Amino acid sequence: MSLKLHEDYLKGFVQSEDVEAQVPFVEKAHQALDNKTGKGSDYTGWVDLPGQIRGEFLKDLNDLGEEVRANSDCIVSIGIGGSYLGIRATLEAVGGAKIPVYYCGHHMSVDSTRQLLETLKDKRVTVVVISKSGTTTEPALAFRIIKDHLQKKYSPQELSRRIICVTDAHKGALLQIAQKGGFRRYVIPDDIGGRFSILTPVGLLPLALAGIDISSFVQGSQDAQTLYSTTNMEKNLAYRYAVNRVLLYNQDKQIEVLSSFYGNLFYVAEWWKQLFGESEGKDHKGIFPASLMMSTDLHSMGQLMQDGHRNIFETFLQIEKPRHSVVIPKEEQDLDGFNIVAGKDLDYVNKQAYKATAAAHYEGGVPSMTIELEKSDPAHIGHLYYFFERAVAMSGYLIEVNPFDQPGVEAYKKKMFALLGKT
Amino acid sequence: MSLKLHEDYLKGFVQSEDVEAQVPFVEKAHQALDNKTGKGSDYTGWVDLPGQIRGEFLKDLNDLGEEVRANSDCIVSIGIGGSYLGIRATLEAVGGAKIPVYYCGHHMSVDSTRQLLETLKDKRVTVVVISKSGTTTEPALAFRIIKDHLQKKYSPQELSRRIICVTDAHKGALLQIAQKGGFRRYVIPDDIGGRFSILTPVGLLPLALAGIDISSFVQGSQDAQTLYSTTNMEKNLAYRYAVNRVLLYNQDKQIEVLSSFYGNLFYVAEWWKQLFGESEGKDHKGIFPASLMMSTDLHSMGQLMQDGHRNIFETFLQIEKPRHSVVIPKEEQDLDGFNIVAGKDLDYVNKQAYKATAAAHYEGGVPSMTIELEKSDPAHIGHLYYFFERAVAMSGYLIEVNPFDQPGVEAYKKKMFALLGKT
Repeated sequence: MSLKLHEDYLKGFVQSEDVEAQVPFVEKAHQALDNKTGKGSDYTGWVDLPGQIRGEFLKDLNDLGEEVRANSDCIVSIGIGGSYLGIRATLEAVGGAKIPVYYCGHHMSVDSTRQLLETLKDKRVTVVVISKSGTTTEPALAFRIIKDHLQKKYSPQELSRRIICVTDAHKGALLQIAQKGGFRRYVIPDDIGGRFSILTPVGLLPLALAGIDISSFVQGSQDAQTLYSTTNMEKNLAYRYAVNRVLLYNQDKQIEVLSSFYGNLFYVAEWWKQLFGESEGKDHKGIFPASLMMSTDLHSMGQLMQDGHRNIFETFLQIEKPRHSVVIPKEEQDLDGFNIVAGKDLDYVNKQAYKATAAAHYEGGVPSMTIELEKSDPAHIGHLYYFFERAVAMSGYLIEVNPFDQPGVEAYKKKMFALLGKT
Repeated sequence: MSLKLHEDYLKGFVQSEDVEAQVPFVEKAHQALDNKTGKGSDYTGWVDLPGQIRGEFLKDLNDLGEEVRANSDCIVSIGIGGSYLGIRATLEAVGGAKIPVYYCGHHMSVDSTRQLLETLKDKRVTVVVISKSGTTTEPALAFRIIKDHLQKKYSPQELSRRIICVTDAHKGALLQIAQKGGFRRYVIPDDIGGRFSILTPVGLLPLALAGIDISSFVQGSQDAQTLYSTTNMEKNLAYRYAVNRVLLYNQDKQIEVLSSFYGNLFYVAEWWKQLFGESEGKDHKGIFPASLMMSTDLHSMGQLMQDGHRNIFETFLQIEKPRHSVVIPKEEQDLDGFNIVAGKDLDYVNKQAYKATAAAHYEGGVPSMTIELEKSDPAHIGHLYYFFERAVAMSGYLIEVNPFDQPGVEAYKKKMFALLGKT
């Protein structure tokens, strides 16, 4: 199990004296986080969460997964923001889902919704609905539409087995709907916000239904909790990453680009964007998080990274050992000149592309870090999530915002409800 | 056929006097573009391209499409950057492809490549390889791997029917490979760069194979060519968009976010990113292009848009009439409070979400424009591409860069070849 942080390409941008000068602030922020005395401390339940997850609970979820997979051809997962991205990020990163999972409730596109209804037509379906309140427009309407579809297919009794709700323990529309319909319920803890919820039933339930090894996933996050609960900056790479980011931001690097050469990490980057954007982007502050998928973006945005406005730093997300192997074939006539790598694994060339990119961008004036995972398996992805959660809590405190609220998200909701005439 | 540009939410950021003050510069840039006297004028063949595309050529492509679909279960399209994004953007935006299209050559991920090879195993395959030189690493290696796979399946004669190359007319490794293998060939014009190539065979051939109405697609671009070849700023919305962008950039709005509430436009946003990022991002200048997909990102990055660092402006990409309809069902007990929209189309609510978002972000200090297409059909998407091409040519000239070169892309390639020991 390992996560490495490479900092060679911070040279000239972040000095070790600068990092050391931050240590007193890191200490203070760390105490505030641990003692729940900092901003937004009502929503820091995620800090100790990994260590509190019980094996029996995971076993129950796994049993439910087996039951559901036995009577379903697919899962529909309804949720938005933190109730969507983490699930999809994990399933795509770790691979090997034992049943197809479709997503809705994160958009109101009629064309995609119609397509999903077509896909579900002749399939046995189990639905997971994830919403603290049950009144968030996108998932609430998606749930109405999917439920309506299933009601034409199943008896009320059968339907009650096929809808599973993840919602507030005590209140809200979805709780009432679940109680009325006799649907199974799982609880979103009060002290954990949506974007930090991947290790609650919000994430664990759908992952268990898909047959992912949630025990390893949780174990990875527990290892991370142990590693990143110290203010020893040699050991706490999450805090190092956070401090480096803040020092770069203070040099007017307004944009952080998360770049990966591994396509299965696309939604991990999306999850990272929502975590950092929503946690830091307030009080007219915050680094703008963007992502690049390589090599595609090397042949387009790569130009801007190399030579454009120098308001950027880059974080590479690398995987040491991919799951598969693809050997590059030899050609009799070497017209394209690539016999030089014939017989080698394609990933060897991919890693040279990464090395070349990091070096070239640095020479072009873009500092970078690299987060390297040994594998993209459940343990490492669980580890990575906790790493980022700790990091954003620290960077948020260092730039003096409340990393755990999202007052700005309400602005469009209020206006939309007014337009819809909803009270 | 219509494309509208809404500018209400520029108020207080872009004044009509400011736009008027730019007119002399617009005139000058326009002349340079039309007379091919500006920077990078060797690569402005795209300006007059739509009007030069002949009906017989489109008919030939359509005939080839019918032939290929009759003997294939799927298409594999090999290309990177501009030889990938435009094809995928169009197919996803307009829908209705008559045959599955898989993509490779835009990454070197072994896991995705292995998955593609599994998918192709029992299928009849036609491959399109798009590369001017044939020596770009990613598509060259993908072509080796796919060709190796097909050689085990097909005789050399059969293989020669199943590989189609889009490459340089006179030189390069792919041309030689095509000649040697007896593959059909289509030409990438010398005076059109990759990111402006969607209306050349680079885009038209794969779209025709997929059975898309390329005549409407080209017609849309021809309409746009007519509309956006004037310096009358009332009529030329492409130049208006360009001037507004530059005026915002001059106010230190360093990031442009393209936001859409229509998921089928995801890859259109990616295409837009590569066009604008690669055209403007040089000489330490250029707006950073990012995209948001709504509503997902409203519940995460929306916080940052509303309240974060005020270094952003937003461009919404809206569709007036989606293809399908999904009616919101009524519930007996209105627990979630959404019976207020029961019986209405989901797209009605989607549009209120857009209106609410644009208003809320503007009040939060984010100026915005909205580009509205009547439909996301081939004609409108073809129109939109030309709109953006004209716009970026103008904004590039206004910020005084060469919008048609990409010297920075070579930096990582050189380093990678050095690492691989390739000369």
